[in-house]
Amino acid sequence: MLIYILSLIGVSVFAVSGALAAGNKNYDWIGVFAIAFVTAVGGGTLRDLLLNRSAVFWVADPNYLWTVLISTVLILIYAKYFQPPFNLLLSADAFGLALFSISGAQIAEQYSSAGIVIVLMGVITGAVGGVIRDVLTQEAPLVFSPKENLYSSAAMIGIICYLFSKTLGVGGTTASLIGIAVILLVRFSAIIWQIRLPAFNPRKS
Amino acid sequence: MLIYILSLIGVSVFAVSGALAAGNKNYDWIGVFAIAFVTAVGGGTLRDLLLNRSAVFWVADPNYLWTVLISTVLILIYAKYFQPPFNLLLSADAFGLALFSISGAQIAEQYSSAGIVIVLMGVITGAVGGVIRDVLTQEAPLVFSPKENLYSSAAMIGIICYLFSKTLGVGGTTASLIGIAVILLVRFSAIIWQIRLPAFNPRKS
Amino acid sequence: MLIYILSLIGVSVFAVSGALAAGNKNYDWIGVFAIAFVTAVGGGTLRDLLLNRSAVFWVADPNYLWTVLISTVLILIYAKYFQPPFNLLLSADAFGLALFSISGAQIAEQYSSAGIVIVLMGVITGAVGGVIRDVLTQEAPLVFSPKENLYSSAAMIGIICYLFSKTLGVGGTTASLIGIAVILLVRFSAIIWQIRLPAFNPRKS
Repeated sequence: MLIYILSLIGVSVFAVSGALAAGNKNYDWIGVFAIAFVTAVGGGTLRDLLLNRSAVFWVADPNYLWTVLISTVLILIYAKYFQPPFNLLLSADAFGLALFSISGAQIAEQYSSAGIVIVLMGVITGAVGGVIRDVLTQEAPLVFSPKENLYSSAAMIGIICYLFSKTLGVGGTTASLIGIAVILLVRFSAIIWQIRLPAFNPRKS
Repeated sequence: MLIYILSLIGVSVFAVSGALAAGNKNYDWIGVFAIAFVTAVGGGTLRDLLLNRSAVFWVADPNYLWTVLISTVLILIYAKYFQPPFNLLLSADAFGLALFSISGAQIAEQYSSAGIVIVLMGVITGAVGGVIRDVLTQEAPLVFSPKENLYSSAAMIGIICYLFSKTLGVGGTTASLIGIAVILLVRFSAIIWQIRLPAFNPRKS
Repeated sequence: MLIYILSLIGVSVFAVSGALAAGNKNYDWIGVFAIAFVTAVGGGTLRDLLLNRSAVFWVADPNYLWTVLISTVLILIYAKYFQPPFNLLLSADAFGLALFSISGAQIAEQYSSAGIVIVLMGVITGAVGGVIRDVLTQEAPLVFSPKENLYSSAAMIGIICYLFSKTLGVGGTTASLIGIAVILLVRFSAIIWQIRLPAFNPRKS
């Protein structure tokens, strides 16, 4: 139940991040809702398609859609009068990333026993929504950029810690809390000290 | 049968719209066919994937592919000698949008009882092909732009009218005709009087 | 077994092509791996989703993911010290295209008897990875460009020859070797003599 409420909060935060990105491109209301929607549910949707789950999560449970809709309406109203609280959003986004990545990994565990598949599905769940957002707003994907502090790498490290904890015999709930904590720790450290992955500069003739 | 022929016409019109968009980017023939293809079947394909239908519609019925292929060849020949009839295409596109949206909603009804899922699937069926077309031709998605007259909003309003009519006890066929009529009415009104959704301008510091 | 090893080599080559494209955009390491991944497995993944296969190929067999990972690490190291061997890569890419296209067509044959579906699925398997790579690196899709020598057209011609050989009674293995040979022949000829499809220039007012 707690996990469910947290995941709705994650969806809400990602929807707001998408809505604001669409606003920066001066998209219209439908565009804002569309970008909010793909940002919030895009990662989990791709995971569900790739795992060939019997139903995509928001078709099975439309509460996710209502969460996106209501969050988008609220931010549309709020941002008309006030400047969005970017620092709060940045923190909330880190929670969304952590929750989505670990819950995505847990779902993947039901479909595959290969660690590399589980890690990848977790990262996809957490980070792909933002990639689709960037494609649809014609921006270079932020998560691939050396200007972004550790983001999908944070998710990856956290999921590996989650899997490793379980291998060591830690229970599922504890292991997922460890994974979430590691993602938050890495992400916040990366934001505070601007830790980034190096860019790849292939040698040119 | 009439619905089937109308949906092939819808596919044909969307294919032509995609082919011309590719032509404006001077893509080669394969590029033109590819853009025509994704524009025509992209929305219905995403709907089928999201609903986890047993087969994507154009794999189950290749007539849709032949329709795309023949339409693209014809417009390639036609547009070499004559200027494409943009006003006719704009009207035909509205019919395509109306047919796709209502038929998409009807298919979604078989998989979900949630109104918000049905509306969303209808809009996806009608509008997503154009979004993929814009992404692949490196344009800002037109349907999200405040420069475009009501498009996906027209689809949304029509699908809601369709569902509402059924709730009031109207038969399925009549309800779908009502939905289609509403979409055409809203879209044509929007084109004639340039009715648009406002843009979202979040407050900046 | 030979086919399996060849397809792993194809994945490896496509991963390197994606990694170098990401490097040209100065993406960070995660971005490089992500682009390598979608370039290498994007086409086959879309095919598996569209055919509603019970499992996407790299979820069923994670060796493909390890191949992408190892190939990306190796090219990251290699390209730091040496200029990538572009001509070798161009040849290897042609082999990848040929293998992916014919194996994609063979998989599609198990799900559809329609020639147009089989050809399309083969071309999707061979060419879509490169399209996603170009979208994510904000480039106009190369395979749609009249500046690119015959690429997806080569795949299409080869698959048609493969299907035609089978219609004439040629065995499956021989037919696939014919298809692969035709794709390589057309692609290498197109590179050497710069054979291209014409661009589509619709008439403007």
